[in-house]
Amino acid sequence: MLVLRVKACSVNPIDTKVRGGVYDDFANYYEHTPPLPQIIGFDGAGIIEDVGNDAQGFKPGDEIFYAGSPIRHGSNAEYQLVDSRSVAHKPKSLNMVQAASMPLTWTTAWEALVERMEIKEGEKSGILIVNGSGGVGSVASQIARFILKLPVVVTTTSREETTKWSKDLGATHTVNHREDIVKQIKDLQLDPPIKYIFITHTPASKYIVDSAAICAPFGKVCSIVQDKEIPMYGTEWMAKSLTYVWALIGTKPFYHVDVDSHGKILKQLAEWLDEGKVKCHHQQTLPLTLEGLRKGHELLEASGVMGKVGLSVDAGGVEEGKAFM
Amino acid sequence: MLVLRVKACSVNPIDTKVRGGVYDDFANYYEHTPPLPQIIGFDGAGIIEDVGNDAQGFKPGDEIFYAGSPIRHGSNAEYQLVDSRSVAHKPKSLNMVQAASMPLTWTTAWEALVERMEIKEGEKSGILIVNGSGGVGSVASQIARFILKLPVVVTTTSREETTKWSKDLGATHTVNHREDIVKQIKDLQLDPPIKYIFITHTPASKYIVDSAAICAPFGKVCSIVQDKEIPMYGTEWMAKSLTYVWALIGTKPFYHVDVDSHGKILKQLAEWLDEGKVKCHHQQTLPLTLEGLRKGHELLEASGVMGKVGLSVDAGGVEEGKAFM
Repeated sequence: MLVLRVKACSVNPIDTKVRGGVYDDFANYYEHTPPLPQIIGFDGAGIIEDVGNDAQGFKPGDEIFYAGSPIRHGSNAEYQLVDSRSVAHKPKSLNMVQAASMPLTWTTAWEALVERMEIKEGEKSGILIVNGSGGVGSVASQIARFILKLPVVVTTTSREETTKWSKDLGATHTVNHREDIVKQIKDLQLDPPIKYIFITHTPASKYIVDSAAICAPFGKVCSIVQDKEIPMYGTEWMAKSLTYVWALIGTKPFYHVDVDSHGKILKQLAEWLDEGKVKCHHQQTLPLTLEGLRKGHELLEASGVMGKVGLSVDAGGVEEGKAFM
Repeated sequence: MLVLRVKACSVNPIDTKVRGGVYDDFANYYEHTPPLPQIIGFDGAGIIEDVGNDAQGFKPGDEIFYAGSPIRHGSNAEYQLVDSRSVAHKPKSLNMVQAASMPLTWTTAWEALVERMEIKEGEKSGILIVNGSGGVGSVASQIARFILKLPVVVTTTSREETTKWSKDLGATHTVNHREDIVKQIKDLQLDPPIKYIFITHTPASKYIVDSAAICAPFGKVCSIVQDKEIPMYGTEWMAKSLTYVWALIGTKPFYHVDVDSHGKILKQLAEWLDEGKVKCHHQQTLPLTLEGLRKGHELLEASGVMGKVGLSVDAGGVEEGKAFM
């Protein structure tokens, strides 16, 4: 274990969900998490104050970044206790708030594409990423295009700004999620076709229905968003022998499985960031204060945020926050 | 293509489903299949009468076995046109009706375990197979134990006869599907635990709920039966990042994908049967006549059949049929 002085963190949709009690419906969620009220904040960056005997490779003064585990209290705090297996040294090319914006989204997208959908590097397949300019979408497109080198990476966007940005971050094509996605994909006449779909935005049930028409036979669909309905009946889901899988970054810490993979994923990410192979998707900074957190949650709940909103102990007031960096 | 004189075929649940119009709800099913009335019968064995120019490796007089493609008319017939890519030479150690009982179930189970759930040989994982003594279950247990060499192969059975038979065919443990499966599995304290679940019997929705409690994190559940409800919400499906996938033998012929794999799967099966590595699950024979077919459908619709019911041109009347072999 590591005792950490938190320098920066970021806000993620899971923060607002936990705050709003969404996981009351999530079976066994609270069996794994600390007693309420839980300190939230699921990723961050900071400086090590002290180390436990098991914390190999880390010493006081080291700068690290990490995805906080949902089974412990989070990063919306001055100090945090983190599992040394789930952290890595901060990339040299990023400042603290930039580094703090990457771990939760990157690890989530990595687990979804590489571990759950098992996409292989160099595969001649296409992927569709729902909400390409969101926090997870804007790293998923980079993993798909820059790391896995898929020839076809389609993202959904709607504004001109987000469309351009998603293309900078790996999208080979974009479609507008405010219009008929099935028709737009069909009109693109993609070669190779879409074999993978990554749902990073609600409503999952709508995209599950669309997936049946879009996906190639034996395709795989991964969602990080929950839905009460899984409407596959009466569609081509069975005819095409499609796969549906959830990716939840909490699964490893919840069940104490392969927890050190989180540290390894971030160590590899730090190398790629420093080499310039992938880009940080941090876009705005707020102060790491109660007021800053409130503003951060409001931004996410209003939807439409491009990339990540970070919070830093070094940032000024909320109004100045938006202009930082 | 091959022109075939049908010597034997078998009855499968899909025959009764197609006959009963179940696929009226199966989107696009009839886009792929011949115009109704379709001749059913989805596997068989027979003697080649004539070959097309594309039929490499086969000549008139060859004895073959095959899973018929749902995009063509079936094996409940005197003659049948079959795609040479989806057939293999009949195993020497089996007679025609035994050989005719294997292709649909074996190919279905193979695709489910090896291709869809991607289970690797020698994996230290457990599997649960629902309806271990059914046509698909009784070959799936053999694939799991004798080919993939999984250390834990649990099947569901209920009668003493089917329990013993399933253990002969690879089950290391059995649980009673008329009682609480989740509790029985928990009581077995399996090591390794169940990572894979293969649903070969209705109601899929019940087993989908049970799977959430039974499956290890990152486990995979494969079903060959359809259901209107996919009740995952409020369970551990998302907490464990589980995978749900359908296996349908029709996907390859429907979408013209990898059709020659069906012939390769059967060629390998014939070798394993002749080596004694796997056993034929054929149990009863009826005459391949209208009366025999009616009786075969009645047996399947009454449920509880152990292994496969075959139909042979060499069998006697329906009453004697049950005593054949």
